[in-house]
Amino acid sequence: MIFTTQKITESYWKVAINHPPVNVFDPEFSVQLRTLMDELEANENLKVVVFESSNPDFYVAHAELVNIFDFPKGEGKTGLSKSWPDIAKRLEQAPFVSIASIRGRARGLGSEFIQAFDMRFASKEKAVFAQPEIGIGSFPGGGGLERLHLLTGKARALEIILSGDDYDAQTAADYGWVNRAFPDNELDAFVENLARRIDSFDLKIIKKIKATMNERVIIPQNEHIMETQIAFFASLTEPEARTRIKKLLDQGLQTYGDVELNLGKYL
Amino acid sequence: MIFTTQKITESYWKVAINHPPVNVFDPEFSVQLRTLMDELEANENLKVVVFESSNPDFYVAHAELVNIFDFPKGEGKTGLSKSWPDIAKRLEQAPFVSIASIRGRARGLGSEFIQAFDMRFASKEKAVFAQPEIGIGSFPGGGGLERLHLLTGKARALEIILSGDDYDAQTAADYGWVNRAFPDNELDAFVENLARRIDSFDLKIIKKIKATMNERVIIPQNEHIMETQIAFFASLTEPEARTRIKKLLDQGLQTYGDVELNLGKYL
Amino acid sequence: MIFTTQKITESYWKVAINHPPVNVFDPEFSVQLRTLMDELEANENLKVVVFESSNPDFYVAHAELVNIFDFPKGEGKTGLSKSWPDIAKRLEQAPFVSIASIRGRARGLGSEFIQAFDMRFASKEKAVFAQPEIGIGSFPGGGGLERLHLLTGKARALEIILSGDDYDAQTAADYGWVNRAFPDNELDAFVENLARRIDSFDLKIIKKIKATMNERVIIPQNEHIMETQIAFFASLTEPEARTRIKKLLDQGLQTYGDVELNLGKYL
Repeated sequence: MIFTTQKITESYWKVAINHPPVNVFDPEFSVQLRTLMDELEANENLKVVVFESSNPDFYVAHAELVNIFDFPKGEGKTGLSKSWPDIAKRLEQAPFVSIASIRGRARGLGSEFIQAFDMRFASKEKAVFAQPEIGIGSFPGGGGLERLHLLTGKARALEIILSGDDYDAQTAADYGWVNRAFPDNELDAFVENLARRIDSFDLKIIKKIKATMNERVIIPQNEHIMETQIAFFASLTEPEARTRIKKLLDQGLQTYGDVELNLGKYL
Repeated sequence: MIFTTQKITESYWKVAINHPPVNVFDPEFSVQLRTLMDELEANENLKVVVFESSNPDFYVAHAELVNIFDFPKGEGKTGLSKSWPDIAKRLEQAPFVSIASIRGRARGLGSEFIQAFDMRFASKEKAVFAQPEIGIGSFPGGGGLERLHLLTGKARALEIILSGDDYDAQTAADYGWVNRAFPDNELDAFVENLARRIDSFDLKIIKKIKATMNERVIIPQNEHIMETQIAFFASLTEPEARTRIKKLLDQGLQTYGDVELNLGKYL
Repeated sequence: MIFTTQKITESYWKVAINHPPVNVFDPEFSVQLRTLMDELEANENLKVVVFESSNPDFYVAHAELVNIFDFPKGEGKTGLSKSWPDIAKRLEQAPFVSIASIRGRARGLGSEFIQAFDMRFASKEKAVFAQPEIGIGSFPGGGGLERLHLLTGKARALEIILSGDDYDAQTAADYGWVNRAFPDNELDAFVENLARRIDSFDLKIIKKIKATMNERVIIPQNEHIMETQIAFFASLTEPEARTRIKKLLDQGLQTYGDVELNLGKYL
C-alpha cells in the first residue's frame, strides 16, 4: 500500500505516501493513486485532504524511468490520460480541498504532483524542489509546462525548467511554487490548524468557493497537457535521453543515496 | 460624516475613514462613499487620493451583518450594483490614482474595499487582513472571488478564502495582497512621498498610464461580480449562515472588543 | 563597439555592454544591438547568452533624449519597429536563452531592455531599477506598459510607473521585476553556474522548452506595443515633456554625475 489514509474525521482525511526507497511515481503509484482518488471522490462529505510523505527525505522523488512506458494507458474520467493528467485534473476540479504538506524532495513529476493540489506548504529545512527533466534530455511532461508558470510567472518557470537545479523551500515560496515555507517544527501545526479550520466550515460553501474560483482563474488547457505529455514520452526514446538516463541510473538514481539526495549536482 | 476629506493640494486629497466603533461597511457607509466618489470624480484636476483610517485598530472591519439587506438597491453608473461593486469599478476606472494606507483590520468587505484601489501599503505592526466569510457560512461577495487571485494567484487566494483566518501585513505583502508592508513609523512618510511625487506629475500623463494599464491587464468581469454578489446575499438567508452570524453577534461582533480584534480565532 | 561578445563556448556567449559615459540606449545602441541580434540568431548552436555591463554604475541608463527622434525607422523582421520593439520580440521568440546579469542602473528603456530577456538576476548592492518616464512628462514606450505587469502584477506596475522612483534590487525581486537579487559577490557565480548548466543540456530540448512556454503564457500583443510606442513619441513633442527634459539635461542628465546616479530624486 503506497497510500495510507487516516480518517481524522469523516470529512478531514490525511494520506501518507510511502513507496520505498525514494517514493518514485511509477506505474504502481499511478494505479494506486487512481484508486485513492476514486475513494476520495466517493466520500461526498469530504472537505479536506492533506498529503504527507512517510519518508523524511523524499516527498515524491520523480517519475520512475526504467518502466516509464508501462504507465496505465487510455483516458480517464476527464478525457485526459489515466497515467496522471486525469488525476491532476480531478484534484483541481474536486469539490474537496487538497493540501500538500511537504518534507523531502519533490522533483519532476513529484513537483508536478504538488502543482495539482489546491495549496502547498513546505518545510524550510527539509523540502527540495526541482524540474530536472532537462538533465535527462527532456522537459516537464506531467503538467509543469502548463501549471508552473501560473504559480511563478514565466521568467521564474523558465529558470526552474531550464536550470533543472534544486530549489530550497524559501526560494520556492518566494517564487510562488509553494504558498509558504515554515520552519520544520512549525509546519505540522500550521497545516493541522488550517485543515481543522476548513473541516469546521460548511461543506456546500467549500464546494462553492472552489467551483467559483475555478471559473475565475486561468486553468491549463487539456489539449496543452496532452500535447506536452505525448512529446515528453517521445523525447525519452531519443538517444540523447537514453544516454543521460542510463548514466544517472548507473550512478544510483532511484536508489536511496547521494544522486537522489542531491540530484541537481548530477545533471 | 464617515469620510473626512482633507485637500492637501487641489489635486492631492486625503480621506479619513471614521465610523465608530469599528468602521463597519454598512448601508450608511455605502451611501456616503457614493457621495464621496461623486465628489472625487467631479474634481477634474484630481491626481491622487489616499484613504486612511482614523481608528488605529480598524481600517474597515467588514460588512455590517444585521442590516445587510438594507444596502442601496439598483444599478450605479457602471451598471453594477450601487451598494459597492459600482464604486469599486469606478475606482478602478477613475482617471485619478487611489492609494490605501492601511492600519488596523481590513477583513471581508474591508479587504475587498482595498482590493479596488490602485495600490495598497500596510503597517507591519498594525494591519491585519482576512476574508472571513466562510466563518459565517458564506464567501466573499464584494469582489474577493474576482480580484484577490489577480493579486495573489489562485493557490494563495484559495488559502485565504478557505481558511478565513487573519493574515499579518508581511504575509499579505509576500502574497501580493498589498504592494508592500512597512514598519509602522515609516508608512506615513512612504505614502506621503509617493502621493506628493504623483501630485507633481502631469495630469494627462497620469490619466494615460491608468487608462492604458487597464486595457493591458485582466479586469474582473461585471457578470462575474454580480453573479457572486447575488449568490452571496442568497447564502446569508440559509440557516447555517444565520446560526453562525447570530453566534458571533452574541459574542460581540461589531462592537469594539476581542471578537473584532481577533476574529480569526472565533470563526 | 558598444557590445563585446565573448564566446565562452560555441553555444554559450557573454555580451558586455559599454557605451560611455552611462550606457544610454541611443540610435547607435539600437543599430549595433540589431547587428548583434542578427549574429546571435545566425549561430544555430547558441544555447545561452548573458548580457552584462562593463560600467559598474550603469547597466543601461535609459533612452537617449536629445536624439530620440533619430532612432532607426521602419519595421524589423517581426513587423514591429526596428528601433527596439522588433529586437525585444526576437529575444522573446529566440531559440536560445537570454539572461540579464545586472549591476548599475536600469531605468526607462534600460528597464524595458531587461524585461525582454528570459531571466533577470541583480546585484543587491549595485542594481537600481526605475520607469522614470512620468518625470519627463511621458510613460514607458518600449514595452513597459505591456511587459512589466506580467512580471509584477498590475498594482505594483502602476506603483512603479506612476512613482517614477528608484527601486533597489531586493524590492525588484520581491515584486518579480527580476527573478532574484544576490549579494554582489555571489551574483557572478550564480549566473555562471546557471549558464554553464544550460550550456550542458541538449540544444533541441532548450528550444522545445522556450517554444512551448511561449505558447502557454500571455505574450504582449504587437498592436499594444506599437500603439504605446507611437503615443510615447508623440508625448515627447508636448511642451510639458520638452520643459521637463530640458531641465533635467541642464542639470546633467546623460552625463556621469548625481542626476544619473540618483535620478529618482530629481524627477
